[in-house]
Amino acid sequence: MKPETTLFERALRENAQQVENLLDNVLSPAHRSDEITRPDNLLEAMRYGVLNGGKRLRPFLVIESSKMLSGNALAALRVGSALECLHCYSLVHDDLPAMDDDDLRRGQPTVHRKFDEATAILAGDSLLTIAFDIIAAPETPLPDASKTALVLALARAAGIGGMAGGQAFDLAAEKQAPDEQGIITLQAMKTGALLRFACEAGAIIAGADAETRQRLRTFGERVGLAFQLADDLLDLTADAATMGKATGKDAARGKGTLVALRGQAWAEQRLGELVDEASQLLEPYGERADILTAAARFIAERKS
Amino acid sequence: MKPETTLFERALRENAQQVENLLDNVLSPAHRSDEITRPDNLLEAMRYGVLNGGKRLRPFLVIESSKMLSGNALAALRVGSALECLHCYSLVHDDLPAMDDDDLRRGQPTVHRKFDEATAILAGDSLLTIAFDIIAAPETPLPDASKTALVLALARAAGIGGMAGGQAFDLAAEKQAPDEQGIITLQAMKTGALLRFACEAGAIIAGADAETRQRLRTFGERVGLAFQLADDLLDLTADAATMGKATGKDAARGKGTLVALRGQAWAEQRLGELVDEASQLLEPYGERADILTAAARFIAERKS
Repeated sequence: MKPETTLFERALRENAQQVENLLDNVLSPAHRSDEITRPDNLLEAMRYGVLNGGKRLRPFLVIESSKMLSGNALAALRVGSALECLHCYSLVHDDLPAMDDDDLRRGQPTVHRKFDEATAILAGDSLLTIAFDIIAAPETPLPDASKTALVLALARAAGIGGMAGGQAFDLAAEKQAPDEQGIITLQAMKTGALLRFACEAGAIIAGADAETRQRLRTFGERVGLAFQLADDLLDLTADAATMGKATGKDAARGKGTLVALRGQAWAEQRLGELVDEASQLLEPYGERADILTAAARFIAERKS
Repeated sequence: MKPETTLFERALRENAQQVENLLDNVLSPAHRSDEITRPDNLLEAMRYGVLNGGKRLRPFLVIESSKMLSGNALAALRVGSALECLHCYSLVHDDLPAMDDDDLRRGQPTVHRKFDEATAILAGDSLLTIAFDIIAAPETPLPDASKTALVLALARAAGIGGMAGGQAFDLAAEKQAPDEQGIITLQAMKTGALLRFACEAGAIIAGADAETRQRLRTFGERVGLAFQLADDLLDLTADAATMGKATGKDAARGKGTLVALRGQAWAEQRLGELVDEASQLLEPYGERADILTAAARFIAERKS
């Protein structure tokens, strides 16, 4: 094991623990000002959908991007946790019978299997909603202008022009396989937009200038492309036990992936290039960027 | 017809037209900065779920509350339109088979009947998301502090401690009828929270002081209570043709309402009291409050 991997993996684990502590608190029965009360069953479903041992990769990218640029640590932790709520909402809704119809997620029953469909829909809705709550709340130590920028960027990354639109393209792809450009657009929206936001958010939190914000945004795009290519490779090669969810589904459904179109060798070479491009983007930050470049490599080489 | 009713109804119609023009523009195929592209089918479903001839009562309350307090008109129109997107998301999701399983909404097929379930789920998700986009966008002429306050208040009104939590209580009520306090809490969350937000939002947009904000908030609470009582009365007495949706469903499902518990005569008297209380709250504003007090009366006396 390379030393940098160890360092990265420890940072990933420590950040994940902080995110989970914060989410455990945010998703507690005590209702906040302006709220009336919190129904037990819905809260339990939200917690089940979020506190499930995820890697917390998106919060990690927010936290470490912000740290590299000397952003406020608590603000980054809160924005990262908000992003994780939003990511988990998308998993809960994507798993629904009308969507991807998945019974397992990380080896456990999906929210609609553990609770019921109505509760899963509402838990997803509430996780999406609370993401904006967490960013805007007074406990997030950021100027209002930064909060506004984060709300806008997150809404656009998550909405019809981003993640939700990508899921719509993904459903359409089951009926008609997209061409290469269609696959690239679909993936940039479905998984790329949130990963790009994660890195850009670090720059917003740190109050960085427009050039830095654009640089982190491009870094996030490269990371997103690498994430998706690695995912497509894993879908082809890993087994369900490693992934904790059904695999080979994309191929079985006839969904196109770049790996299917271009082949495994191309994908592995392209992954290497993406990691190099991502690393070069952060060269101005020297050693401060080490953890993010290690993250890009981890994302490209992960086995689950 | 009383003159004030005519005046109110004209204002309602004119505001609705402005809201629809704005939503027609916001929900256009041109994607915004930070967005990648907008899938046609999903956009069509969002438009179908929103541009459906609703009364636009919530935007009306935002716009007129703001106007009474000399708030910026464009800002109020945009925040009202955002609120309407969020309200319509809740209708789209509530109509789903796993939820209230409704085939008709305002006399037309519901979104999942017109499109499909997956598209309806995503259209709802995207309408919820774009609500925060519209508030935070640079086109909304408000200080960032006001935008942050609006995002936070809206997220809390809509989330687990507000509307979504109210829908969870409503689903639970089908299995076990709630007691009187349970009904009051359910209704305050499911329909009350957004109506309260609508009026409070006017005060936030106008940059009003805390006392005024609280006054508008209480006004919104009274309006919400009146709205729900009138709705329960209509569910009991109106026919499906008038309402454009199935009626008598609450009674058929054994769901408790205050009208069922306390009787029609009590409900009608209580409605009168609520309108009086609401009007008294706005007395300091003299004639400037006329349109809002007419709205409260309309809400209490409406026949559809």
